[in-house]
Amino acid sequence: MRRPLVAIVMGSESDMPVMNEAIRVLDLFKVPYELRVASAHRSPKLVHEFAEGAEKAGVEVIIAGAGGAAHLPGVIAAETVLPVIGVPIDSSPMKGFDSLLSIVQMPGGVPVATMGIGIAGAKNAAILAIQILSRKDPALLKQLKNYKNDMAEAIEKKIKKQGA
Amino acid sequence: MRRPLVAIVMGSESDMPVMNEAIRVLDLFKVPYELRVASAHRSPKLVHEFAEGAEKAGVEVIIAGAGGAAHLPGVIAAETVLPVIGVPIDSSPMKGFDSLLSIVQMPGGVPVATMGIGIAGAKNAAILAIQILSRKDPALLKQLKNYKNDMAEAIEKKIKKQGA
Amino acid sequence: MRRPLVAIVMGSESDMPVMNEAIRVLDLFKVPYELRVASAHRSPKLVHEFAEGAEKAGVEVIIAGAGGAAHLPGVIAAETVLPVIGVPIDSSPMKGFDSLLSIVQMPGGVPVATMGIGIAGAKNAAILAIQILSRKDPALLKQLKNYKNDMAEAIEKKIKKQGA
Amino acid sequence: MRRPLVAIVMGSESDMPVMNEAIRVLDLFKVPYELRVASAHRSPKLVHEFAEGAEKAGVEVIIAGAGGAAHLPGVIAAETVLPVIGVPIDSSPMKGFDSLLSIVQMPGGVPVATMGIGIAGAKNAAILAIQILSRKDPALLKQLKNYKNDMAEAIEKKIKKQGA
Amino acid sequence: MRRPLVAIVMGSESDMPVMNEAIRVLDLFKVPYELRVASAHRSPKLVHEFAEGAEKAGVEVIIAGAGGAAHLPGVIAAETVLPVIGVPIDSSPMKGFDSLLSIVQMPGGVPVATMGIGIAGAKNAAILAIQILSRKDPALLKQLKNYKNDMAEAIEKKIKKQGA
Amino acid sequence: MRRPLVAIVMGSESDMPVMNEAIRVLDLFKVPYELRVASAHRSPKLVHEFAEGAEKAGVEVIIAGAGGAAHLPGVIAAETVLPVIGVPIDSSPMKGFDSLLSIVQMPGGVPVATMGIGIAGAKNAAILAIQILSRKDPALLKQLKNYKNDMAEAIEKKIKKQGA
Amino acid sequence: MRRPLVAIVMGSESDMPVMNEAIRVLDLFKVPYELRVASAHRSPKLVHEFAEGAEKAGVEVIIAGAGGAAHLPGVIAAETVLPVIGVPIDSSPMKGFDSLLSIVQMPGGVPVATMGIGIAGAKNAAILAIQILSRKDPALLKQLKNYKNDMAEAIEKKIKKQGA
Amino acid sequence: MRRPLVAIVMGSESDMPVMNEAIRVLDLFKVPYELRVASAHRSPKLVHEFAEGAEKAGVEVIIAGAGGAAHLPGVIAAETVLPVIGVPIDSSPMKGFDSLLSIVQMPGGVPVATMGIGIAGAKNAAILAIQILSRKDPALLKQLKNYKNDMAEAIEKKIKKQGA
Repeated sequence: MRRPLVAIVMGSESDMPVMNEAIRVLDLFKVPYELRVASAHRSPKLVHEFAEGAEKAGVEVIIAGAGGAAHLPGVIAAETVLPVIGVPIDSSPMKGFDSLLSIVQMPGGVPVATMGIGIAGAKNAAILAIQILSRKDPALLKQLKNYKNDMAEAIEKKIKKQGA
Repeated sequence: MRRPLVAIVMGSESDMPVMNEAIRVLDLFKVPYELRVASAHRSPKLVHEFAEGAEKAGVEVIIAGAGGAAHLPGVIAAETVLPVIGVPIDSSPMKGFDSLLSIVQMPGGVPVATMGIGIAGAKNAAILAIQILSRKDPALLKQLKNYKNDMAEAIEKKIKKQGA
Repeated sequence: MRRPLVAIVMGSESDMPVMNEAIRVLDLFKVPYELRVASAHRSPKLVHEFAEGAEKAGVEVIIAGAGGAAHLPGVIAAETVLPVIGVPIDSSPMKGFDSLLSIVQMPGGVPVATMGIGIAGAKNAAILAIQILSRKDPALLKQLKNYKNDMAEAIEKKIKKQGA
Repeated sequence: MRRPLVAIVMGSESDMPVMNEAIRVLDLFKVPYELRVASAHRSPKLVHEFAEGAEKAGVEVIIAGAGGAAHLPGVIAAETVLPVIGVPIDSSPMKGFDSLLSIVQMPGGVPVATMGIGIAGAKNAAILAIQILSRKDPALLKQLKNYKNDMAEAIEKKIKKQGA
Repeated sequence: MRRPLVAIVMGSESDMPVMNEAIRVLDLFKVPYELRVASAHRSPKLVHEFAEGAEKAGVEVIIAGAGGAAHLPGVIAAETVLPVIGVPIDSSPMKGFDSLLSIVQMPGGVPVATMGIGIAGAKNAAILAIQILSRKDPALLKQLKNYKNDMAEAIEKKIKKQGA
Repeated sequence: MRRPLVAIVMGSESDMPVMNEAIRVLDLFKVPYELRVASAHRSPKLVHEFAEGAEKAGVEVIIAGAGGAAHLPGVIAAETVLPVIGVPIDSSPMKGFDSLLSIVQMPGGVPVATMGIGIAGAKNAAILAIQILSRKDPALLKQLKNYKNDMAEAIEKKIKKQGA
Repeated sequence: MRRPLVAIVMGSESDMPVMNEAIRVLDLFKVPYELRVASAHRSPKLVHEFAEGAEKAGVEVIIAGAGGAAHLPGVIAAETVLPVIGVPIDSSPMKGFDSLLSIVQMPGGVPVATMGIGIAGAKNAAILAIQILSRKDPALLKQLKNYKNDMAEAIEKKIKKQGA
Repeated sequence: MRRPLVAIVMGSESDMPVMNEAIRVLDLFKVPYELRVASAHRSPKLVHEFAEGAEKAGVEVIIAGAGGAAHLPGVIAAETVLPVIGVPIDSSPMKGFDSLLSIVQMPGGVPVATMGIGIAGAKNAAILAIQILSRKDPALLKQLKNYKNDMAEAIEKKIKKQGA
């Protein structure tokens, strides 16, 4: 198995149904990844060790998904110079709106590339990771262009009708 | 100078005008405190060292103020068993609403005692800290009762008039 | 039975499923508590008598949960110098967002230690109460440290896999 | 001076610029009122005594204005069967939105007649009080109808022009 | 049958499950009411005729419930000097938050006594109506006091237990 | 079949249950329309070709429905001088609130006639389209007046009862 | 002077600074308009007479601007089959967000073409009115196309620079 | 001058004060960039040509800032496989909250890496762009690490004091 280029971290095992969408896309593009559960609040050392070690381990992009007061992406971004992509998860009574603000409103100096709330966000996290990786991988770039074309073509075949 | 019982941490020097209100109350009650700037995102090691060392240093309660995606209180709470009080600061275009949600919506297992946004919140953070300390300091408890009485009396003297 | 150190009050019997999570944690830590229903709006005298008498009855920390225009924690805090912890409950069409603002935005002078909305908030209310009690109870402090370690270890054993 | 029919209570002296608009209207209609500052949180006894005694003192309607976690109207409504009118005041960083929800989302059984945020709300509180009083005061009802007509006529005289 | 003292109007037949709670309370207090469906937008003439004629027909208080851009209470208030009580109904994807703002933010001069969103709001609309009517009906006032006492007593009998 | 006067575009096939309500109204008024799926983000060329060609193809009004960051109506409005009607669709965890703001807050110079969120919005999009077309089609105008009358009459027949 | 094709109505004289932007655009396109102040709440008869008479007076499109609980556009739309364009005005402490929801969330059957909040919305209201009028006025359509081209060209001349 | 690696696009010249912060950072890191004004709504062709041509012109990352219904980042992302970073600008009465939702809630398949609202967001856009570029430029990566260290050290020197 190849060394992971993308690391996916999520704050809780219960985030899996959402984050699976990122995995599905990385599998489709055959981009090697690793996946782990690590909570910024409940297992801070685990997060700390991961964030500090990711670059040396060969990881190029980090995807972090979290719900509620979603600190995971920001806490990782604080300890790495790798691009960090954040996915707000709609697991609290506030439906991920709390997570969106907790992830996106980072102070100047420490960006988190924030995606939309929930499954669409998890999917896009993987695609953004691939866009970043494709900056130095022409084969991946080509795959990405095909994916974009296929997406457009799939829509062109959809319903078109007239009425009245 | 006595060993600090309360530690006040703020994410940015620009939070001082708000956090000063906490200092004013601690000074009034003559509760020894220490004050520092440490950012969960821009100086994570500093925060980490502080959070891990606070209990041993004799601190009993931590007050943390932050704006935007305010992770500071939660990140400290992740690494200590001391009570952590969070103050959302209205420094972003979202007027502290982002900070409120980022501080209060903590996952089960890691509480942050969240105060209101801005100056009233900073004042209340100090009072809550004193309430906690007073659980084992009868003199402080007496001061607190006097403060509460004075507050009520001050209002009783306010305008009361009739018209029309 | 030992004298309760924590009092749990809730605005309505229908808040039990949420507040039960606080009870579960206090039971786990073997902290004696009392539990009652008292509404700031529908039974104000009951709340008034409770708030005034709690300190003398030996209560050290009060946890108050309420939904809608959640005044219960603030009304209790107005009449005691004990630390009051507020839990917003997601029982209205606004999903507890109304309760969060009603609890957290207290005026300077009268703090309520506000938790997140719903079950995670109820759990954290109990943990914060224990953090406060542990400031003068070394055995409880030790339990708290074990709890924190167990929480981190539980996460370390979660899924970790590689793919693509 | 006649016995007050309307009692205006506000949580803080700083609410006067807003609540003055209610006074201005009551003066215009020559409805006797009393005015006081009393905080549900900082002077609960004062509020309690006022709420319990208002009906006996001959008050017919209560107007209560408050900002932040605005509990004053609800706390008064809990202890009286008089109609209570609440005015959310835009004094916090949340611009009175917190106060609106704290006032309006009352539990079943204890209504507060909630007005809009700020000066327009204070004005309308007085008019609603007069509408209630006019249910048994035909002279007041006539005044109210004249007021309504004058308001409409004032608008009819406003700009009307054509262009292009 | 006695002449209705309260008129209940709702914007759509689908608002009945919510507005029924107001009817239940009026029935309990034996206050005569009339009930109708009339939409400010879809049947403006019906609303206009009702609003203009209500006072002459002997109605003392109007309760109007509506969802979405809930204009019904305000449109009625524009054409009557009777007190108008507005109930926001959670029928749109915005869960009644749109209706709350549409009802409560009335311009100076034309108040609507706004209740909370949904069923609790409908119940409270009836109670406020009764509070207003009781200003000139001592028997009703007595019923109201009994109702308030019963409500408090019902809560006093709720769960109270100790644990741990 | 007559040349379509109204074009209905939606960002995703999953928007059909909502947009069907627009179709139902156009069918009722016998206004010829065409219907297609085209995504501003996933098939931008398709949208571009449609927007540029619509006027020449005889389309008079465009209805565009989209969810999430709903750019479709604005992107079409950027490339045509035809009136564009936007329908926010409640398909994301934010329940269409995100779509509403994405559609309505257009910069000066490029309007989108924004409707309410969801099914009521889709219905109204069709009616607004018909109102626009009726400006030069007296038969359609007459139909519209009948429709408005029928709507009012339908309500006049609804429940009206008295109680207590 | 030609008969007005567009009627601009605003709820209060204080809305003029915002609505002036609509006038500026209509003047630019030399579209005849009339302008008046009429409040849905304070002068309902005036609004009623205007709404009922507009079509007969030759008006083709109505623009209505209002702040707070902005009922004016909806109330007019209830009484006319003309297209009604609504402009939310940011005059309340809620900055026009209340007005946006009050205008846009209309029930099925009665559309209001809602614009963005404030000045950009007022400008776009005029442009949408012109788009509607241009459906039967080829000269106006040509003007509109020139306007759109000029707008694009003005941007093409803006800053473009390179750095670092 | 070197070929730009980063393209900065903004929807309006008035966005310059915010977007300047991105320029300041790119200048500091000596990363070549180009800067232009292009509006998704007012000059769609300009945006289209830019988005389609950026990759061929050697651009590696695109930064797009916009206010209101901020479609610019999403519209560009629809036509390129380059990473697109979006900056919400607080220029509307909604203070950039509308822009945040318009940018971040992209549909699955077309990500925009969303930053916080306003100046902090613009600064972070540049840093994220540099993080992406540094994935294949070791010198830039070293600069980034120094920048991160300097940021932490600057905070370590901030106020630290004790009191009471």
